[in-house]
Amino acid sequence: MSKEGGDEGGSSSSDTAQQPEEKTPAGKGLSKLSAVATGPGWTKVSCPCCFSERVEPLVLVKLGEKVRPETKRWLIRVIGAPQKDGGAELLAHPGEDASGDIIVVAAPRCTLLKVTEELGLCKTYHTGEVEAFSYHDRDNFKDSDNMEVFLTLAERQHMVKYELDGLRAQRDLRIPGMPDSFALQNRDNIWQKLGSAGVIVDTYPLHNADKLKSLSEAWYTGNQLAQPLDSVNEYFGSSVAFYFSFLDFYTWSLLPPALLGLTITYFSGEVQKEIEESVSGSPATDLEDDSGPAVGGHMIQAVFSMLWSTVVMELWKRRSSSLSYRWGTLHLAERFAEPRPGFHGDLGVNPVTGRVEPLFPEWKRDLRMALVSVPVVGLFLGLVILGMTGFYWGEAQVQQLNKDWDSLLSQTLIYMPSVLHIVYTNVLATVYRTVALSLTEFENHREESSHENHLTAKVLVFTFFNYFAVLFHIAFFKQDVPLLRKRLASLLIVTQLVNQVTEVVIPFLVDRFISAPKRTESEDDPDEDKFRNQGTLPAFPGLFAEYIELLVQFGYLSLFSCVYPLTAVLLLINNLTEIRSDAYKMCKLFRKPFCSPVSNMGVWRIAFEVLSFVSVVSNCWLLLLSPWIQRLSQEGEWSSTNILLMAVLVEHVLILVKVVLSVLIPDEPDWIRKKREHIEFTSRQALREQKLHSKES
Amino acid sequence: MSKEGGDEGGSSSSDTAQQPEEKTPAGKGLSKLSAVATGPGWTKVSCPCCFSERVEPLVLVKLGEKVRPETKRWLIRVIGAPQKDGGAELLAHPGEDASGDIIVVAAPRCTLLKVTEELGLCKTYHTGEVEAFSYHDRDNFKDSDNMEVFLTLAERQHMVKYELDGLRAQRDLRIPGMPDSFALQNRDNIWQKLGSAGVIVDTYPLHNADKLKSLSEAWYTGNQLAQPLDSVNEYFGSSVAFYFSFLDFYTWSLLPPALLGLTITYFSGEVQKEIEESVSGSPATDLEDDSGPAVGGHMIQAVFSMLWSTVVMELWKRRSSSLSYRWGTLHLAERFAEPRPGFHGDLGVNPVTGRVEPLFPEWKRDLRMALVSVPVVGLFLGLVILGMTGFYWGEAQVQQLNKDWDSLLSQTLIYMPSVLHIVYTNVLATVYRTVALSLTEFENHREESSHENHLTAKVLVFTFFNYFAVLFHIAFFKQDVPLLRKRLASLLIVTQLVNQVTEVVIPFLVDRFISAPKRTESEDDPDEDKFRNQGTLPAFPGLFAEYIELLVQFGYLSLFSCVYPLTAVLLLINNLTEIRSDAYKMCKLFRKPFCSPVSNMGVWRIAFEVLSFVSVVSNCWLLLLSPWIQRLSQEGEWSSTNILLMAVLVEHVLILVKVVLSVLIPDEPDWIRKKREHIEFTSRQALREQKLHSKES
Repeated sequence: MSKEGGDEGGSSSSDTAQQPEEKTPAGKGLSKLSAVATGPGWTKVSCPCCFSERVEPLVLVKLGEKVRPETKRWLIRVIGAPQKDGGAELLAHPGEDASGDIIVVAAPRCTLLKVTEELGLCKTYHTGEVEAFSYHDRDNFKDSDNMEVFLTLAERQHMVKYELDGLRAQRDLRIPGMPDSFALQNRDNIWQKLGSAGVIVDTYPLHNADKLKSLSEAWYTGNQLAQPLDSVNEYFGSSVAFYFSFLDFYTWSLLPPALLGLTITYFSGEVQKEIEESVSGSPATDLEDDSGPAVGGHMIQAVFSMLWSTVVMELWKRRSSSLSYRWGTLHLAERFAEPRPGFHGDLGVNPVTGRVEPLFPEWKRDLRMALVSVPVVGLFLGLVILGMTGFYWGEAQVQQLNKDWDSLLSQTLIYMPSVLHIVYTNVLATVYRTVALSLTEFENHREESSHENHLTAKVLVFTFFNYFAVLFHIAFFKQDVPLLRKRLASLLIVTQLVNQVTEVVIPFLVDRFISAPKRTESEDDPDEDKFRNQGTLPAFPGLFAEYIELLVQFGYLSLFSCVYPLTAVLLLINNLTEIRSDAYKMCKLFRKPFCSPVSNMGVWRIAFEVLSFVSVVSNCWLLLLSPWIQRLSQEGEWSSTNILLMAVLVEHVLILVKVVLSVLIPDEPDWIRKKREHIEFTSRQALREQKLHSKES
Repeated sequence: MSKEGGDEGGSSSSDTAQQPEEKTPAGKGLSKLSAVATGPGWTKVSCPCCFSERVEPLVLVKLGEKVRPETKRWLIRVIGAPQKDGGAELLAHPGEDASGDIIVVAAPRCTLLKVTEELGLCKTYHTGEVEAFSYHDRDNFKDSDNMEVFLTLAERQHMVKYELDGLRAQRDLRIPGMPDSFALQNRDNIWQKLGSAGVIVDTYPLHNADKLKSLSEAWYTGNQLAQPLDSVNEYFGSSVAFYFSFLDFYTWSLLPPALLGLTITYFSGEVQKEIEESVSGSPATDLEDDSGPAVGGHMIQAVFSMLWSTVVMELWKRRSSSLSYRWGTLHLAERFAEPRPGFHGDLGVNPVTGRVEPLFPEWKRDLRMALVSVPVVGLFLGLVILGMTGFYWGEAQVQQLNKDWDSLLSQTLIYMPSVLHIVYTNVLATVYRTVALSLTEFENHREESSHENHLTAKVLVFTFFNYFAVLFHIAFFKQDVPLLRKRLASLLIVTQLVNQVTEVVIPFLVDRFISAPKRTESEDDPDEDKFRNQGTLPAFPGLFAEYIELLVQFGYLSLFSCVYPLTAVLLLINNLTEIRSDAYKMCKLFRKPFCSPVSNMGVWRIAFEVLSFVSVVSNCWLLLLSPWIQRLSQEGEWSSTNILLMAVLVEHVLILVKVVLSVLIPDEPDWIRKKREHIEFTSRQALREQKLHSKES
């Protein structure tokens, strides 16, 4: 409130930092950055209850180099102003000097608590039950006086970003120090506008060195089997924690198929052959070599893995809902909060919440998806197929040419189709990613999560198609099982090695030998320099790459498991290292990401489930192609039509069993259902009571 | 309250009715049955706000003939006592004389309103919005002072039954006039106990002659196209109204396939042939007669009907949810109410509602279903197959015998297998029905609706299997399309005629010529005699038979539509008469049933949806058997394997399209979703407010 008085004074209490052009790195006020709230530097808190001895710097805002000090002061004032005056009600610190290019942001207690309610997070009540947090009732929640215990670090940082992203101009206004051409109109999103104008270059959450150290010790330095999921949730947020939980769960659930695969391979005496094959890559086996019992083993493997995938996904749903309960994200209120910053529409009264906000009709979105998004995505999938066809055509042409001419030129030409295909695929993927983003923006989703899910779904379908088109082509058109096996083995080994190298080793080397020398850091450095240094790390690219890796793995395993029984073993080994390398990457090689609280894996769960159903079709087909069956039909024991009918019958039965299994296994444990129903019951009761109260008053 | 004082006095205010052995039918107090609340006969209301000039008799309780007057007086006292004293807080009238065998029950306003809240019904708020009713806030709901407008007749009657069924002894007690061996223990369900002891013979809701007259006029006497669904809901309750809505919706949605079927049959010039065939029943056509274009038409018909069934079911879900909103049953609170009377378990605190009540663990129920119910149902399905196999075996034997002997005896014997099979099937069905009921009782479901659904599902699977086993046998084992067509046509025509006759004509005749003469009724008869007369009508057998008829129809249509394109036309004609005859039956031929409020068709919707998916498999198979395809393969144009592969591909694509369609079409209209989310939002808000209030107080 006091802020409103000083019109031009900026952070009026930041007396030391106020002196301009003070360039010495070890400034006086800076090492106190995380010290005293009312001390120099930090803007004042607007309510007395938020007064605290210590201020925790949460988020760093990096400004453009050409930003003038008055613009920075204005921004600091907006960040600190109360919400009713259009501010974010946060704490801001101008850093080293008032005209420098960073602002450090922290959050007072009241703001955090209000956002906790707005997001619909659940916290522990004084009775020990986990309940939806209510600001009015804050004193009855455990630890609600100590924000660093009450909320996780990731939640606090997300809340700061939530408030900053939600800043909207309350009237048309000009920003001090900016050209007249740049003005904010009423309801403009300030953070977006300033971002596109180059005033704000970057906003990132700050690492907490102590916590990071203890987390990394518990996570990947030792030989521990279990991951410290709660600490991951505390430090990185629930979306990252859900990824690692799933990775963990999935890795352990690979044990049964891996054991089965090993047994089958061992007993069918194929161990050496398989290994030879996959190492040498030579199609050493011809049809006659595959012995009967081995194929029988493959069949067991296939049926097992088809049912296994459904059971695993159902159990994961249960685990996921208990994790979500544990992390307080079971009742997120995103639908009832303000729409995401990028959402636009005509102003109107939201029929659900009764607030005035932009509205966009559902049918318009559906129409856009049906008439624009679906055809465009289809077009790109067509382009993938076109590329593959072109590749095969080109290869045939070049081989013909090579046979005809047999010159050096033609021998070089033989690599042309592959090179061209790789280039084509990569260009296509890059173009597609941009297109997918604009399509999703165009669809204009109201909630951040639904935006994310639709974007992910689009990229996911394309990427998956890209990965599997060749394998499907081999399996269904060429019908060449030995080639499929060879390809699968090489993919499993090569791509995973490549992935691990590109994901971890290269960033590590770059960081160690290129970036790190530039940021010589010592314990005595002032906080601000440490914060600044974090900015030199690359931004975290998101979990898409991690999830798609798992999905592709899962695809290899479930779609073609009957071809190569050792798949599960290889994946298990890969994932055990993957867990550690991913953890290392998260902690050391990237900037800390913002993570919004989520209650599940979103669209990825659906992708895994769809794959698990498609796998039945593909496995039945592959079994049909297996040499044993082929021989049966050649020897005339069964007619090929009867074999086919048998396969179709088996497929239908398996699908039926999977559907029944997934219906019968409840998606949430019984105790979660009871908690959920209890909350529903109490809120119904409350609604009745409230009507009574509102009548009385 | 005043009741509590008089220990033995019975209905202390019923002065005229008190005189015993007064047998004249036109008694003095009787015609006033529906007149004045405080007048003679009715028990007193316990709260002043419920005082009303007129009492509407809702439910009639029929007592056993040997019940002593003191038992009846005790029962009347219990019905009238306040709930905190273990009573039902209803109004009771001893009828003609205090020792007669009926009790007429009515309900005061407060009891009705309390139960409205308990059931979770939604009513119109003063703002015009439909909201969950709250007893505290009753004055703000529209018409809440006039029960006959506020609640429907069906709701009021269900509420009386709900209260009577919920009566529990509050301590161990002896019932006056009953032998000492019969005593109630604490928490015993009074109504159930008295029922099994023969004290209460029957409890049925009373017809309202005026309303019934206007309903029947609007429903089936004229030539009206639309059914008065709201009035049906008002008079018979939502479960009956849902059945008629679905019948209506489904009948109209038969128009497109009927038109298509007519067009195809006409253009392929098969009209006469089909009609001849179905009338004469002779397999006049051999394979060569089926012309190419006709089969092409059948294919169009099959693909159309497969997609049509999904679209219809999705649209029905939307319609169903808007009807449920309209009838105020969208937020039923059955889960939060007392368990159903038949439920038993160890007393404990319900974790959801916090009330003390019998509890039964979920896993125990699951175990019982998995280990007992499923195997037993499977056994009975096996017995159906056994019966069918026996029938075919017997028929073959008898025909062999007839050929060998050719005597009169052997010619009589030829009917033996059919007769035995029919007897066997009927006995099996009867036994199964009893078994299904005990299985469901054994599963011990907490809610009435879930009990109903599980019972229905069991009977449904069996009945459906019974109907379709022969057709499936012909289609999949005999692979005899002409026989299937013949059978289907005769089933469609014959069973529907038989159904209409058994369902309506016979009850009508029985009623008119056997029952009616016994109940000569005139306008001047006292109310009580009219009420008594309703008891002579047979009890309504429930909607199972009606729904299964529709399901079997739907099965003929979707499973075998490509065989007989006129199916939809025949069904359309049948259903147009079915609507009226069902309506007539409901109104005239049966006693009025109790109907609990429901929010959808329950398990029937799932049955229709499952059928619609199975239909894809069966249609693809039948198309494969069609002569055109068979000829293709015989002529060597396509190999039979390729044709089969093609069919499998088409099947998979169709299933995919159906899945996508059912995911894409939202299950509820957008405006319902908004209302639902609004209610969720307000109850979350209320929960927060409530915590505040409870803290303050």
